[in-house]
Amino acid sequence: MNVAIVGATGYGGMQAVNLLNNNKKYNISYLGGNKTCGSKWNDIFPFINIKSDPYIEKISADNISYKSDIALLCLPNGISSTLTRKLLDSGVKVIDLSADYRYRSLDKWKKIYSKEAAIYKRNDDDLCKEAVYGLPEINKEAISKGRLIACPGCYPTSALIPLVPYLSQGIIENEGIVIDSKSGTSGGGREPNQKLLLSECGEGLSAYGLINHRHTSEIEQIASLISGNNIELLFTPHLVPISRGMHSTIYGRLRDPGLTSDDCRILLDNFYRNFKNINVLPVDTFPSTKWVKNTNQIFLSVKVDNRNGKIIILSVIDNLLKGQTGQAIQNLNIMNGFSMDDGLDLINNFP
Amino acid sequence: MNVAIVGATGYGGMQAVNLLNNNKKYNISYLGGNKTCGSKWNDIFPFINIKSDPYIEKISADNISYKSDIALLCLPNGISSTLTRKLLDSGVKVIDLSADYRYRSLDKWKKIYSKEAAIYKRNDDDLCKEAVYGLPEINKEAISKGRLIACPGCYPTSALIPLVPYLSQGIIENEGIVIDSKSGTSGGGREPNQKLLLSECGEGLSAYGLINHRHTSEIEQIASLISGNNIELLFTPHLVPISRGMHSTIYGRLRDPGLTSDDCRILLDNFYRNFKNINVLPVDTFPSTKWVKNTNQIFLSVKVDNRNGKIIILSVIDNLLKGQTGQAIQNLNIMNGFSMDDGLDLINNFP
Amino acid sequence: MNVAIVGATGYGGMQAVNLLNNNKKYNISYLGGNKTCGSKWNDIFPFINIKSDPYIEKISADNISYKSDIALLCLPNGISSTLTRKLLDSGVKVIDLSADYRYRSLDKWKKIYSKEAAIYKRNDDDLCKEAVYGLPEINKEAISKGRLIACPGCYPTSALIPLVPYLSQGIIENEGIVIDSKSGTSGGGREPNQKLLLSECGEGLSAYGLINHRHTSEIEQIASLISGNNIELLFTPHLVPISRGMHSTIYGRLRDPGLTSDDCRILLDNFYRNFKNINVLPVDTFPSTKWVKNTNQIFLSVKVDNRNGKIIILSVIDNLLKGQTGQAIQNLNIMNGFSMDDGLDLINNFP
Amino acid sequence: MNVAIVGATGYGGMQAVNLLNNNKKYNISYLGGNKTCGSKWNDIFPFINIKSDPYIEKISADNISYKSDIALLCLPNGISSTLTRKLLDSGVKVIDLSADYRYRSLDKWKKIYSKEAAIYKRNDDDLCKEAVYGLPEINKEAISKGRLIACPGCYPTSALIPLVPYLSQGIIENEGIVIDSKSGTSGGGREPNQKLLLSECGEGLSAYGLINHRHTSEIEQIASLISGNNIELLFTPHLVPISRGMHSTIYGRLRDPGLTSDDCRILLDNFYRNFKNINVLPVDTFPSTKWVKNTNQIFLSVKVDNRNGKIIILSVIDNLLKGQTGQAIQNLNIMNGFSMDDGLDLINNFP
Repeated sequence: MNVAIVGATGYGGMQAVNLLNNNKKYNISYLGGNKTCGSKWNDIFPFINIKSDPYIEKISADNISYKSDIALLCLPNGISSTLTRKLLDSGVKVIDLSADYRYRSLDKWKKIYSKEAAIYKRNDDDLCKEAVYGLPEINKEAISKGRLIACPGCYPTSALIPLVPYLSQGIIENEGIVIDSKSGTSGGGREPNQKLLLSECGEGLSAYGLINHRHTSEIEQIASLISGNNIELLFTPHLVPISRGMHSTIYGRLRDPGLTSDDCRILLDNFYRNFKNINVLPVDTFPSTKWVKNTNQIFLSVKVDNRNGKIIILSVIDNLLKGQTGQAIQNLNIMNGFSMDDGLDLINNFP
Repeated sequence: MNVAIVGATGYGGMQAVNLLNNNKKYNISYLGGNKTCGSKWNDIFPFINIKSDPYIEKISADNISYKSDIALLCLPNGISSTLTRKLLDSGVKVIDLSADYRYRSLDKWKKIYSKEAAIYKRNDDDLCKEAVYGLPEINKEAISKGRLIACPGCYPTSALIPLVPYLSQGIIENEGIVIDSKSGTSGGGREPNQKLLLSECGEGLSAYGLINHRHTSEIEQIASLISGNNIELLFTPHLVPISRGMHSTIYGRLRDPGLTSDDCRILLDNFYRNFKNINVLPVDTFPSTKWVKNTNQIFLSVKVDNRNGKIIILSVIDNLLKGQTGQAIQNLNIMNGFSMDDGLDLINNFP
Repeated sequence: MNVAIVGATGYGGMQAVNLLNNNKKYNISYLGGNKTCGSKWNDIFPFINIKSDPYIEKISADNISYKSDIALLCLPNGISSTLTRKLLDSGVKVIDLSADYRYRSLDKWKKIYSKEAAIYKRNDDDLCKEAVYGLPEINKEAISKGRLIACPGCYPTSALIPLVPYLSQGIIENEGIVIDSKSGTSGGGREPNQKLLLSECGEGLSAYGLINHRHTSEIEQIASLISGNNIELLFTPHLVPISRGMHSTIYGRLRDPGLTSDDCRILLDNFYRNFKNINVLPVDTFPSTKWVKNTNQIFLSVKVDNRNGKIIILSVIDNLLKGQTGQAIQNLNIMNGFSMDDGLDLINNFP
Repeated sequence: MNVAIVGATGYGGMQAVNLLNNNKKYNISYLGGNKTCGSKWNDIFPFINIKSDPYIEKISADNISYKSDIALLCLPNGISSTLTRKLLDSGVKVIDLSADYRYRSLDKWKKIYSKEAAIYKRNDDDLCKEAVYGLPEINKEAISKGRLIACPGCYPTSALIPLVPYLSQGIIENEGIVIDSKSGTSGGGREPNQKLLLSECGEGLSAYGLINHRHTSEIEQIASLISGNNIELLFTPHLVPISRGMHSTIYGRLRDPGLTSDDCRILLDNFYRNFKNINVLPVDTFPSTKWVKNTNQIFLSVKVDNRNGKIIILSVIDNLLKGQTGQAIQNLNIMNGFSMDDGLDLINNFP
């Protein structure tokens, strides 16, 4: 199976190289990067050695489809849409890590990603409708049949995995959900950016995108679909001075205030019992993002305020793996009929 | 005015030395620390030079009252209660930075601080009732007349300053308040502690004390008092890998969902217009804890979800200054008839 | 005394605003910044409040000289040289924080700063010769009479302060000096830069500029001048994941191998006994950069290998204060006949 | 092959569990830890899952030898010596990660580790003489035949790997070597320690152990052995606020000052060409500790000052892997006739 990594020199692409480099099921057939094209990979990344030492190539649908069966698009929002139809038409399946195909409606995308919509004149509402939302633990069946997978954002992943079991079974009320998320700086990408300089964001913590961060709408779309109701929620992302890691603290109200912490823990445990990357912790054990660093694991913990039936759910992921490329590889595995965890047995190596 | 700093070698005490060292209104008359007693201050802290290079002394009420008019108790919970009555009886006023006098009822304290209550057999419910809760922007009048001030915890400070204006005027519903707080590691103190090793908590983030952290009850006590109703809320503290800084993200529901972000900002601005350490930011400007590091300032920002009248309020403080010793100095100033900001014109020195 | 801060929105400029903002001896008469010109200062920096809330202005010699008696040039290398002659001709004294006037010869500058020399066609060898090297503890007399001061680089400051006493008295051999320096990331400035992203440089340490870093020549120029001999030394800078702070570990050989650690400590202590910002530590007390953060202090420590007369000297500074703007203010004070420490009584506020 | 991990809950032990957990060549037969004995591993370390979920057992030679063919001793200095003879007598081979058997002479150990020598009354000079210094790239033959391996310290590893090629061939002069090393905090272990609190050492950098750090003597012993001469050198360790990573900057003088950077690079490259964990970088490419985090790799870079024949060599390792447990596993592999890199194909996963 020949896999193209498009946008190879950003964090998403680098992780993809790491994960596929020694994976015997896949061959990295193409590495695309416009700024570095013409360079040899090992010269740019002496610490991520690829034995064949390939060249980084210009990004074009022709270059990709000539060599590859499937493409991982690790590109800024908007750019994926310029390649996807051509790739699909050439018979190349697409796993897109950007937001381009996360909404069922192109109009919705244009509204939410208006800045990108002003640059990239898209006309592929059909592909938006065809695309499968690539949350593997929830949507495996559809992913296995899809040819265009829209990988979820990191924040939606960290929020939906803990929420879906409760929403799908009507355990939590649809109203009043609060998602307070904290992310490491690698979520902001590898492009130079004053706000992400160590001098600026080190030894500090701040919120951003209050009320209308783009991922709010993505989370609401899926949460509404799962619950069968229109859900409006509060989502607040925060920037934390760590490279990797994402922590979501989710607040909700139980429909049945008599449920205990342990009831809620068991429910979660049952829901995910077949997924070895999802770990539900004992009540009163609270995970650190450090536990999942460099892995595709999720740790979940849940606790109920038994005075009033409020519930708090915690989730931690590595934003670049389960939150991004690790999840993309799960989708790749499913599309190819392998176990979704293949090649994702990663060691955390605390501390 | 002779001031004793009791527990001088922990973070609270060290900040107190810094703040009083060059303050002409006060004289540091006594430095107490049991582990280091007998040492000269400048030998232990070559980077916090006190001109007179005093000895650190054994902690005893006699030693303190012999030399001092007022005592800052920067001690672990429980220990303050062993000194306070004697100090008051000797005519020494007390500003206590621990939790010992934060509750109006000793029974409540014993319930919440049960571990300490098992060690320290307290019998001073009268002092619990006499003690004034030292939140200077809210409680100035009572502080000015008090002889025993219980300084608020860092989390309660960061939560109450933003909440009080809305609660006191009934703008926010009493039900459904969520306080998601993030603290730097210095809040955990200076004692050796595996969880606070850089190797353990660096490059990671985790929640702790879900549902029943001790500060939940402290926040609820004051919030209930202010609103005139019994308030139950959710408070979740998180440990962030920074030395200093505290960020609270507070979620609530407006009684009048027609209020705009700007309405809510103006309300906050008006409430605190006479306090130069409280800064209300324009809508959509979100503060970093880094902006207040090394200062006694608070920055507040507020935003409304105009789809449904939910409100988010952000606050940032330096947990060791406005969250601890800076606030104690405000109380000290008020008790002595000075402007509460005296000696607290601190430079942030970003980055 | 009206002072212009030119390049006000970089780290050098921001520190200058902090240091002069509440300093009654000086008035900030002008804030120059090309990217932000037209904005009000307090809108850009809500956490560095200037009471008058001035506009940031376009950078031009006319704008500056119209309002100011003296200009602090906090600009990238090369740009200062386009302003300096005009400013001096208008009677404005110049304190330059860049490297433009650190060499006595323009040719030398052109060789070392060849990239900048290709952009800025300089013709001011006379000013290079006139400029005074602004290391206040060594060069106070000349500074007091100068109208153009070239402030030292941060690395040279951290290396020369400890070396000068030994070199000037011939205690250390000229041959074989090694300076191993470690700097926080703010030394790299505030411009977006991939290498300085927290994601890239956090949790890592690396050397750069081996053998031919530009500061090697600057250190060698002054060391040679002081010792009266041509000195060639090894200087290696390293990037450390902290915002502020610089540590230099300096290795040399004693001419008289019989000298003890204490002999060498006393010598240093005597040399700097009149400078209250220079602190010589007891033997076997080793300073942290954290001790000097946010201050203009230097801590020095020295130790001898009594097997063979090798000496190690340690120095720590805040790279943005003693290493940059704090030192510039010392020069400003000296030029105006004030004590060099005026306005530099800064609190470290550990941790 | 049944392997005992003794001292399993410190960083050395935790790494050992990680490295052997999914290694089919070895079976973890015993986990020893006195403080946690009786607990189940997975309860203590939910983020390092061992399928069999073994109990942690009391540390005793009998317990170990009953179940194991070989023991990894990940214990504080001094304690290993209380177990080693019994283990060897029971036929259990020993890989010791402490300093107990690093010196050929017990007297030397007693002198250098005097504090430990006062507690542990050792009488095993014969074992000191028998023990093999476990630097696998240098000492493979002896390791393969040994039954007691003394793993090198982290600093000696990071210094000797780059120095040995030059010393063994007489390229660098024996006199005047300077090793300036920087280590992450995990090198200080997992025991609570005020100096290693994030609040204390975060945002700071400091040197320690000047002149007489214990590793100086260890490096000198091996360097002298390799060069055939008595070598005295300067070694200075520094504490850097990162969890993992070690960087050594080594300064020396070439005997033949005509050698170029590239000559010196080629020499290093040739020396280590058969070791796939040792990477010699192109001249002017300087490694970050971040490149080797979570791996057993070393990156080396070398540069010559062609004015005077001085040489600088850089090395980076992960102090807990190549600097500790990864190296121990190399020794384990060699003792068992496997390739020394077996099970050490670790992904770095930058950033």
